[in-house]
Amino acid sequence: MLKGGYKGKILRLNLTTQTFSLEDTTEEMAKNYIGGAGFGINILMKEVSPTADPLGEENKLIFAPGPFTGTNVPCASRIAAVAKSPLTGAIGMASSGGYFPAEVKFAGYDVIIIEGKAEKPVYVYINEDKISFRSAEQLWGTKTFDCQQMIKNDLGDQNIRVACIGPAGENMVKYSCIINERRAFGRKGLGAVMGSKNLKAIAVRGQKEVAINDKDAYKTARSVMNKAMKESHVLYSMFSNAGTPCVVDLAGELGILPTRNWSDTGEWIPVDKLGLEANNEKKIGREHCYKCPVGCSQMKLARGGRYAGMLTEGPEFESIYSLGSTLGIDDLDVVITADRVCDELGLDTISAGVVVGFAMECYEKGLLTKEDTGGVELKFGNDIAFMDLLLDITYRRGLGDLLAEGTKIAAAKIGGGSEKFAMHVKGLEMPGYDVRGAKAQGLNYATSYTGADHNRGYAFQEIFGIPIPEEVDRFAYEGKGKLTKWNQDVRAVTCDCATMCAFILDMAVPGIATQNTASLLEAISGLKFTAEDVQTVGERLNNVAKVYNTAAGLTRQDDNFPERIMNEPLKDGNSKGECISQENLDIMLNEYYEARGWTNEGVPTEEKLRALGLDDLIGLLQDK
Amino acid sequence: MLKGGYKGKILRLNLTTQTFSLEDTTEEMAKNYIGGAGFGINILMKEVSPTADPLGEENKLIFAPGPFTGTNVPCASRIAAVAKSPLTGAIGMASSGGYFPAEVKFAGYDVIIIEGKAEKPVYVYINEDKISFRSAEQLWGTKTFDCQQMIKNDLGDQNIRVACIGPAGENMVKYSCIINERRAFGRKGLGAVMGSKNLKAIAVRGQKEVAINDKDAYKTARSVMNKAMKESHVLYSMFSNAGTPCVVDLAGELGILPTRNWSDTGEWIPVDKLGLEANNEKKIGREHCYKCPVGCSQMKLARGGRYAGMLTEGPEFESIYSLGSTLGIDDLDVVITADRVCDELGLDTISAGVVVGFAMECYEKGLLTKEDTGGVELKFGNDIAFMDLLLDITYRRGLGDLLAEGTKIAAAKIGGGSEKFAMHVKGLEMPGYDVRGAKAQGLNYATSYTGADHNRGYAFQEIFGIPIPEEVDRFAYEGKGKLTKWNQDVRAVTCDCATMCAFILDMAVPGIATQNTASLLEAISGLKFTAEDVQTVGERLNNVAKVYNTAAGLTRQDDNFPERIMNEPLKDGNSKGECISQENLDIMLNEYYEARGWTNEGVPTEEKLRALGLDDLIGLLQDK
Repeated sequence: MLKGGYKGKILRLNLTTQTFSLEDTTEEMAKNYIGGAGFGINILMKEVSPTADPLGEENKLIFAPGPFTGTNVPCASRIAAVAKSPLTGAIGMASSGGYFPAEVKFAGYDVIIIEGKAEKPVYVYINEDKISFRSAEQLWGTKTFDCQQMIKNDLGDQNIRVACIGPAGENMVKYSCIINERRAFGRKGLGAVMGSKNLKAIAVRGQKEVAINDKDAYKTARSVMNKAMKESHVLYSMFSNAGTPCVVDLAGELGILPTRNWSDTGEWIPVDKLGLEANNEKKIGREHCYKCPVGCSQMKLARGGRYAGMLTEGPEFESIYSLGSTLGIDDLDVVITADRVCDELGLDTISAGVVVGFAMECYEKGLLTKEDTGGVELKFGNDIAFMDLLLDITYRRGLGDLLAEGTKIAAAKIGGGSEKFAMHVKGLEMPGYDVRGAKAQGLNYATSYTGADHNRGYAFQEIFGIPIPEEVDRFAYEGKGKLTKWNQDVRAVTCDCATMCAFILDMAVPGIATQNTASLLEAISGLKFTAEDVQTVGERLNNVAKVYNTAAGLTRQDDNFPERIMNEPLKDGNSKGECISQENLDIMLNEYYEARGWTNEGVPTEEKLRALGLDDLIGLLQDK
Repeated sequence: MLKGGYKGKILRLNLTTQTFSLEDTTEEMAKNYIGGAGFGINILMKEVSPTADPLGEENKLIFAPGPFTGTNVPCASRIAAVAKSPLTGAIGMASSGGYFPAEVKFAGYDVIIIEGKAEKPVYVYINEDKISFRSAEQLWGTKTFDCQQMIKNDLGDQNIRVACIGPAGENMVKYSCIINERRAFGRKGLGAVMGSKNLKAIAVRGQKEVAINDKDAYKTARSVMNKAMKESHVLYSMFSNAGTPCVVDLAGELGILPTRNWSDTGEWIPVDKLGLEANNEKKIGREHCYKCPVGCSQMKLARGGRYAGMLTEGPEFESIYSLGSTLGIDDLDVVITADRVCDELGLDTISAGVVVGFAMECYEKGLLTKEDTGGVELKFGNDIAFMDLLLDITYRRGLGDLLAEGTKIAAAKIGGGSEKFAMHVKGLEMPGYDVRGAKAQGLNYATSYTGADHNRGYAFQEIFGIPIPEEVDRFAYEGKGKLTKWNQDVRAVTCDCATMCAFILDMAVPGIATQNTASLLEAISGLKFTAEDVQTVGERLNNVAKVYNTAAGLTRQDDNFPERIMNEPLKDGNSKGECISQENLDIMLNEYYEARGWTNEGVPTEEKLRALGLDDLIGLLQDK
């Protein structure tokens, strides 16, 4: 049984039988996967068939914090959630911060596996060794903030931490999320997986400390980390004070802030209305994750007109794009309000906004009519129609029912060429960087194991101009295959497995990511880790995920873009004229597959799998 | 210094100087006023001139729990708030339940006096002996639920209890309230008093137990109380399971449920849509005040259309009337939503609804036009206009700015005879019993020290048909003066001073109110009290309050009704043909003044004041 950093226990909850069991986490798991999504994806691979129905009883939902979660390590209070995604059919992985992650460790668990399906709505209360399945029939229908408070009141303990779904998850909106506090396990529809299992919430409470194996070594590793964080040019100065909205200005400057469903990027750059300064005017406070000195979450308050008094934690850059610029909306009060509304309904802000932006373009092009919209003028910039549509999506009413299926399925149903501007990869709606002007970011969207995901291999080299591991030209195609592999592997191990915040990566704190993870791991767990070992864990995770997705039926043809990215060059701004043709995508893909040691079809080779100790996965790839 | 039950301390907070001081509560205070509003009004009388500007720096806001608050006595976790009311110019008193009241005791205080005015927005954190004045500049503008959560996060303690104002209080809406948890110090604009002082919130935390003087006597008194509560025919069976919405059915049956601004009562009785059964369909849970076994607060969830997912604690009967029937609205989802919206904005539900109902009638009669409403069709039943108007009132926009002043001032400005159907007494909007069919309830509205207030001398004899102290005919005028005095005195001492819940009164638990208060007081405090002593405290409070109001300029002419009550008989139903003419009101008033030992002008006599030990107040009534 693992100790230092780890709690040594997997809690398995069966909703069908309403029973639980305990298993040990092992040294082998720790060495090969470290924790977090590493544990989660490893377990998914073993226990959920790649061809399983994501909303069927056979899917499982796995929560796993990292080995540093619950310690004093900064930027480490995060937890991964893993299931097969109902939105993409690929691996669904999302992580969240706040206090819930640490509480899972304090309750005594490295992993919580949720399997089966409750006959009627339930929530689970995990109070250290005491596990109870409680009726959630009365809670069904409540929004996420109300639900959390009602559970705390029901259990008579305000210190309980709750992760729950809103009405969107209950109604299995394909991009519904899981909310803890004001934070989201946002993407890939993990809320719908909870909804499909009739699981409204997981409430956790515990007081078990997380042990440190070697306190001196730990002190040394932490002081190295703290020093690097203090020396960062952006971590405290920018992310503490302003959070991610600074990226709006950056993306505007680079000409890669998508606007009006990516139809006119570069022509209309609403940085003055949606950028850093505008955001700072709305700021009324900050929130910190457990033991995080950064506190990047900005609390913002809308003060104008019909949105006066609406408060949200955020909006992050991605939501400013998805709930603002891509909808042709440049009123930050609308974005703040929609962000809050999405959090309370349990909708992923990125997908919800992008799918509405897609519908707006369909309407403007005549592919959707007033007959489809119930008489609503669904044009870009119509904030009231947008707000109403968020409710219609959540409750699956009218056009909302179709849009609840996600952009990919909506485009297939609407037809008329709308697939060309359906902004998704593998069904996952695209985050807010116009990859036509950032090629490695684009390759990452095309190849990430979760679909178009800024969180799997963010090309900070292109966005922030940081020359690590080397200087790059954001418009070049060559070298982007190798770079994307490197970005994805570092990110996978640092953020997905060790569940560190992305702000510990090189974009904010240059040069420490893998070494820092290794040093902390050794000090805290007592297991031996070098920076190379750590990098390999990242590579291993990306290979396991690729095997799973391949076995699920995904091929090289799914590592792609919407046609708009390929055929419609950016119209103005500092990326004017750029797009990524199929030919250029192929150049990058070939290099990427080669760097990964995969076949030209993007399938991991036996050799690569054996080199990573993944021999047992080889059988899954027969006929691929 | 008082002990058993009492904490012995008054905390005086000066917002101007941001300093605090401590004083002792005394045996004399306890004997004469018991606690709660008794303490508060006694202090207001001593320290705030009856002619003070309610929104000026000289007004004070006094919070005081009762001697049983924080003990295991059921139905006792309540706290009074007292100030001069900006809505009525008379004494403003409102109380609230939940956990905040007990927390004030645990922090060590019988009374908190707030005086002066902060230069910039602040909140006060009271952590037992540690008092801090903290900036609330960033919190200014937040809604009440968000504000409470932000303060808990700011102070890093989820067990803190907070009472705060919303934007309505900040903007000094004359009927803005103070919210703790989901509960309100609802009426008379005490939120505006906080707003005028730049005080956003009071956060409290403590762990000091409330002592019991004689544990055996306490056990005996409590078991008598528990037994009586168990024997009640309605307490658990009705109020636990359904709360106050059962009164909708009762009022409908009696023909006294006001509808469409009291214009058509009896003709349209929407009990099927707004009554007990309809409410129970929306119910998803209950909330309890600290140590209360009853748990009358029903959590209700709207599920339909645009209001889907809205949750509220309540709505209580009064809000079903004010946010529903008096607006011509019979959709309970609208009522639930408006109740939640009012709680979050910090608006008193009764006044907010009644003033909008008044405006709707003005619009229907042509006294307000689309020019006044900004193009809105402000007819009875228009729920969307109603919701928008709640925001406009809160932010004082357009017509909302006028309506934010309350029905009395709005009617004076609108003119055109609208005063006749401006449903208030002394500026306080009328609660939901059409007093034309319940004469003692009417006399209570006319004479309560706070204006038209169902909480000061509720005539349960007429509404519930309970023959205590004797059987009454609800249509009769004779005897109602004496009855109203009795109701007001019992209520004043039991609920206002001892801060017990109204459900401990005879309508729910017959025959124990004053004796129970006396027995508990003796056992807990060690001070001697008979039932007669207790009744006298109630009478004393009503006299002190009347002296204050008289000195503030109120006369017999203010103990009145809107003309509609006098001249427009009810049109149908089981009170058909009833109204209360000036002549009949005078019959009741004369009897009431006589029973009280007041002059024919409604002024307390020297003799009466001396008999109650209030000699020092006599000077205030010179020239009256």
